[in-house]
Amino acid sequence: MATTSAQKKKCAILGATGAVGTRFVQLLENHPFLELVAVGASAKSAGKRYASVIHWQHPTPVPSNIADMIVRPCTPSHYQDCEIIFSGLDSSVAGEIEMEFLKADFAIFSNASNHRMAPFVPLMVPTVNLPHLEMIHAQREHYKLQKGFLVCNSNCAVVGIVVAFAALQKLGAIDQATICSLQSISGAGYPGTPGLDILDNVIPYIAGEEEKIQAEACKILGNFQKDPSASIVEQSIPMTVACNRVAVLDGHLLCVSIRFAQRPAPSLDQIKAALQEYTSDAQTLGCFSAPQRAIVVHDAPDRPQPRLDRNIEAGFAVNVGRIRSDPSGVYDCMFVALSHNTILGAAGASIMNAEAAIKQGYV
Amino acid sequence: MATTSAQKKKCAILGATGAVGTRFVQLLENHPFLELVAVGASAKSAGKRYASVIHWQHPTPVPSNIADMIVRPCTPSHYQDCEIIFSGLDSSVAGEIEMEFLKADFAIFSNASNHRMAPFVPLMVPTVNLPHLEMIHAQREHYKLQKGFLVCNSNCAVVGIVVAFAALQKLGAIDQATICSLQSISGAGYPGTPGLDILDNVIPYIAGEEEKIQAEACKILGNFQKDPSASIVEQSIPMTVACNRVAVLDGHLLCVSIRFAQRPAPSLDQIKAALQEYTSDAQTLGCFSAPQRAIVVHDAPDRPQPRLDRNIEAGFAVNVGRIRSDPSGVYDCMFVALSHNTILGAAGASIMNAEAAIKQGYV
Amino acid sequence: MATTSAQKKKCAILGATGAVGTRFVQLLENHPFLELVAVGASAKSAGKRYASVIHWQHPTPVPSNIADMIVRPCTPSHYQDCEIIFSGLDSSVAGEIEMEFLKADFAIFSNASNHRMAPFVPLMVPTVNLPHLEMIHAQREHYKLQKGFLVCNSNCAVVGIVVAFAALQKLGAIDQATICSLQSISGAGYPGTPGLDILDNVIPYIAGEEEKIQAEACKILGNFQKDPSASIVEQSIPMTVACNRVAVLDGHLLCVSIRFAQRPAPSLDQIKAALQEYTSDAQTLGCFSAPQRAIVVHDAPDRPQPRLDRNIEAGFAVNVGRIRSDPSGVYDCMFVALSHNTILGAAGASIMNAEAAIKQGYV
Amino acid sequence: MATTSAQKKKCAILGATGAVGTRFVQLLENHPFLELVAVGASAKSAGKRYASVIHWQHPTPVPSNIADMIVRPCTPSHYQDCEIIFSGLDSSVAGEIEMEFLKADFAIFSNASNHRMAPFVPLMVPTVNLPHLEMIHAQREHYKLQKGFLVCNSNCAVVGIVVAFAALQKLGAIDQATICSLQSISGAGYPGTPGLDILDNVIPYIAGEEEKIQAEACKILGNFQKDPSASIVEQSIPMTVACNRVAVLDGHLLCVSIRFAQRPAPSLDQIKAALQEYTSDAQTLGCFSAPQRAIVVHDAPDRPQPRLDRNIEAGFAVNVGRIRSDPSGVYDCMFVALSHNTILGAAGASIMNAEAAIKQGYV
Repeated sequence: MATTSAQKKKCAILGATGAVGTRFVQLLENHPFLELVAVGASAKSAGKRYASVIHWQHPTPVPSNIADMIVRPCTPSHYQDCEIIFSGLDSSVAGEIEMEFLKADFAIFSNASNHRMAPFVPLMVPTVNLPHLEMIHAQREHYKLQKGFLVCNSNCAVVGIVVAFAALQKLGAIDQATICSLQSISGAGYPGTPGLDILDNVIPYIAGEEEKIQAEACKILGNFQKDPSASIVEQSIPMTVACNRVAVLDGHLLCVSIRFAQRPAPSLDQIKAALQEYTSDAQTLGCFSAPQRAIVVHDAPDRPQPRLDRNIEAGFAVNVGRIRSDPSGVYDCMFVALSHNTILGAAGASIMNAEAAIKQGYV
Repeated sequence: MATTSAQKKKCAILGATGAVGTRFVQLLENHPFLELVAVGASAKSAGKRYASVIHWQHPTPVPSNIADMIVRPCTPSHYQDCEIIFSGLDSSVAGEIEMEFLKADFAIFSNASNHRMAPFVPLMVPTVNLPHLEMIHAQREHYKLQKGFLVCNSNCAVVGIVVAFAALQKLGAIDQATICSLQSISGAGYPGTPGLDILDNVIPYIAGEEEKIQAEACKILGNFQKDPSASIVEQSIPMTVACNRVAVLDGHLLCVSIRFAQRPAPSLDQIKAALQEYTSDAQTLGCFSAPQRAIVVHDAPDRPQPRLDRNIEAGFAVNVGRIRSDPSGVYDCMFVALSHNTILGAAGASIMNAEAAIKQGYV
Repeated sequence: MATTSAQKKKCAILGATGAVGTRFVQLLENHPFLELVAVGASAKSAGKRYASVIHWQHPTPVPSNIADMIVRPCTPSHYQDCEIIFSGLDSSVAGEIEMEFLKADFAIFSNASNHRMAPFVPLMVPTVNLPHLEMIHAQREHYKLQKGFLVCNSNCAVVGIVVAFAALQKLGAIDQATICSLQSISGAGYPGTPGLDILDNVIPYIAGEEEKIQAEACKILGNFQKDPSASIVEQSIPMTVACNRVAVLDGHLLCVSIRFAQRPAPSLDQIKAALQEYTSDAQTLGCFSAPQRAIVVHDAPDRPQPRLDRNIEAGFAVNVGRIRSDPSGVYDCMFVALSHNTILGAAGASIMNAEAAIKQGYV
Repeated sequence: MATTSAQKKKCAILGATGAVGTRFVQLLENHPFLELVAVGASAKSAGKRYASVIHWQHPTPVPSNIADMIVRPCTPSHYQDCEIIFSGLDSSVAGEIEMEFLKADFAIFSNASNHRMAPFVPLMVPTVNLPHLEMIHAQREHYKLQKGFLVCNSNCAVVGIVVAFAALQKLGAIDQATICSLQSISGAGYPGTPGLDILDNVIPYIAGEEEKIQAEACKILGNFQKDPSASIVEQSIPMTVACNRVAVLDGHLLCVSIRFAQRPAPSLDQIKAALQEYTSDAQTLGCFSAPQRAIVVHDAPDRPQPRLDRNIEAGFAVNVGRIRSDPSGVYDCMFVALSHNTILGAAGASIMNAEAAIKQGYV
């Protein structure tokens, strides 16, 4: 049964003119029960027609009704017609603005890094840790809110790790991991990485990224403990992380090596089966954007590859391949993980988080 | 004092028409005491003018005297005027042809992988293990040669590891390492990686490469034991290796994490100093192609980068940067290493090996 | 009303393992009335499982029923179960093989260049010159066929010209044109252009391409003259053509300058309107693959761009932008045209040609 | 005989921190008679150490003495120790600042576009129109200067045209030309073109570029008329120009078609000879940076190519290839021209202009 416009949840996007913002617009087009009614941006763009202030880079055109919207300033009073706020704000301003909207009792789904590690704030990859949504109760109590809350999605590079680890830890605890990332330039936003820096080149450094991956993975993979503190008990997995920027448009690829705590370690067959059989709560719950397969396992020796595999499952899956043992014997298993950094790694995750929150009655 | 042509050593290049072969030609132009007098290739090219059968990709033009040479077949009888044979042959044919030349008592410096791991064959990165040349005596005895011998240079990706490790092991033994490579497409030769495979993409697999890196590093870093067996006692460093092909023309970048055997481990300052102060035997011996600095240490947080740093020291140095500790505590030190894969990683190493062999009287 | 499998036309693809061949497979997946039942290739692949001999580069996976097909040799006797033959054969073999199939009375839609300029062979861009199909009658008479015939689609770069010119000539004859192409590497097939040749580079030459563009455009834009000769009266437009290969995966971009015969020339407004209003016979006829808009006109000053616009209308449209006058006064109009070289420029055109032939009762 | 430091001309670079500015620094390193003593930039950088405010992208390191210089503000009073000012200023500020320096009686060599078309200002490509320097006398009179003057170098894309045309017009007047450019991203400065815009893409538009090429070419190719007006009589060649940005780091490639006024037109052999034999006044005068060959003619059908040929003659030559007739008969000759946009097309030209001015006693 189709949802009528009247039944749809009215949404706004803050930071709607940036790289993440335009991706939100694209993903919300034709959404069955989320209706985009407002786009917000900085004073520079506010008051102007949306289409006139964006650099649209998606293969489908700007939805025509959105193109003609007048950009609103990012202050809560301008969004009284909205039930859900998606934030694609830059971290230089997101901290303060999101807090204003939270205090104004809005339901906010943010892609910014500012509040990710804050207590009471669920940091969610929807195909990993939906139960963390329950922290919303404590958050409302803490901030004295009726219906508002703030849910963050994760760093774009960490999703490949946490989705794979969520599946693998069904076999036993991982007690050490080494990760080397080859990240696409869209991870740096727009205009982001200059062509002169990345053509025929690699930049073996992304400021703050290695720290974020380690910290966010441990929070996402943690357990929500209702009593007494309503907090996340973080997992503690030592991770050795090296991040690189490569000449790829979309898709972050990770070379991962892991060691399990238990001896003997799970076999490669068990590992492969665990990845293939993994079903997330977002799928079980029937979230609209949930992929059919949260993890797609590749058998070809040279896959996954960013350009060929990033759009599998519409960008909501994590691709895993090259599952192999480590000839050196140090690690139990090595593999390659690939995820779409602006879909599952950004706007897409935020939207799926909203879908789950609606399903569970938080909105 | 200039070397006259009469005093120069006459050289030939086998496989002179391929990517490595043309690099040999380029590097030998204007060499003070190596004179290229013959170019050899497969039956398809033999008998033709050199310039008519190559795909020259270097910014300097084909040396005019070489351009006009008639390509010779790769059989020893055609090279009686040569004292030194450089082999840029493809591994599909190198094994047999090089053995024929060896048995015909030629001095061969090979870039092919076929004989690298053979006993009696020095596998040499000239800025690392010149003493292995001494194995030539045993090799001559074994093959019953008067003046001939076979010396191999290494895989193009391993040089970044062994040069750095040679410096670091002056501080103490390394007992574990993890390496993730981002390798350029020239490492696959010409035509090599199709543009359709690498544009906007990463290929997270290079057939056989991970195994070669582990095996060759242990031999190169081993010690030559004269008595009783005249063999290399290989080092045994467990290495966890993942190799990737990226959209870079030249230069292999490695993300490396290491652990020392000793506790407490050397400090980052000691590590940095050891890298900066490292001087190889090739430099001490005064090899013509030896770099002023065998290792160039970078302080900028985002260096070395392939395009900006691969040509430092004319491609004969290893660049090291991002020397840092591992926040997870698992490894003692993390760093990035970059080397030029067709210079120090291929033809350049072979030429420096020849220079050292001449200096030490083997030719 | 859905077409049942029984009602579908059975098709085969010759040269099914190459770049054009795999694109045929991808485009025929889920086709409402064309059913792929056979894949053919050279002796090297014949007898093997299709999935084991291809290099699949499309974002959707190989259709599972095709993946398991056993590749057939390219001889007519193996295709008795097929009504339609699509040829993605390489031109080194296409000439002879296609002629064998023609003489065996098959309906062949070929992407190869061999027979394009032959008399009696319709050279068709389906959104331009469907009436040329009528030449099939004369062709059958000439070759003494009952139901077979050969229809060629055009060179991949010429489509941008002929579709635009078909629209523009409704305003009056074009009497001179200058064209400079920036062509993608997929136009060279797979493996095609080596990464080492195209990264950070342009190749200002494509063998034979400039000649093909001139010759094919004049035939495609010609008129079929039924009597007395049943032949194409070619248009004679002097074209000055320069072709370049650039680092783009898909999409050929053309910088075009034209002069009309009539004075005063049509205005830019008339030109823009003619392009926007153009409707091809393929659309009117209701061909399944026909685009909604055969020409998409862009107003943004920097569009069309290959990566952003090549997939508009599923790759079956020609994008036109930067419609402007020539300040020098030599030409009446300058513009940029972009088309997808492996869809409208290759396999897609062939399939739409087949759809039209079916609609018109030739199959 | 070496020039001692005392005899060297003291120089400054304004806009020294940008892409053109750093190229000036690189090219002036080791210059025999130009000594860089000051670097200037905007208020944001002034007062800081040069190395701390630049994004250096050249393969050779920042000269150590320059690295430690304190950046000066761009006001004339800070440059009393300088005889020559090179301006790599952005055109948003260059107009005013250069005029201030001119009125303060400095000798300025500017890469900015602001004053290029001004009367009294020589617009010079040193291997084309050195005689235009004579306009300095009139300029000084006009601005009431003792020793100061302003000389501009040209747009980076126009050099390929004017150098080739200067050679060709020795055969007779060119009366029509069509030019399609494929320009590198360094032409847009740094950060310039975002990686997200240019990877797997072409941008068929560069704001203002087509107009500049037409206008500047006509001035550069014009004749200096001493009496009565001391002005340039511009050449009037109708040029049809289309500009594109492609994924190339350095080097602008032009596809050119020309028609001569005279009938019969010069033959291809004559054209080729004229290009090969062309010697510019900068060479005759013995300018230090003048190339041995102002034009390098290529015979290979697929050359020149940006990556392979841009550095020929250290970037001071124009490469010409694919010299051929136009099968359509409209043009007399078609060819491809390639030049290095930040050397002959920017900083290098400015330095050679200064060398010529010194040789001729203007400084």
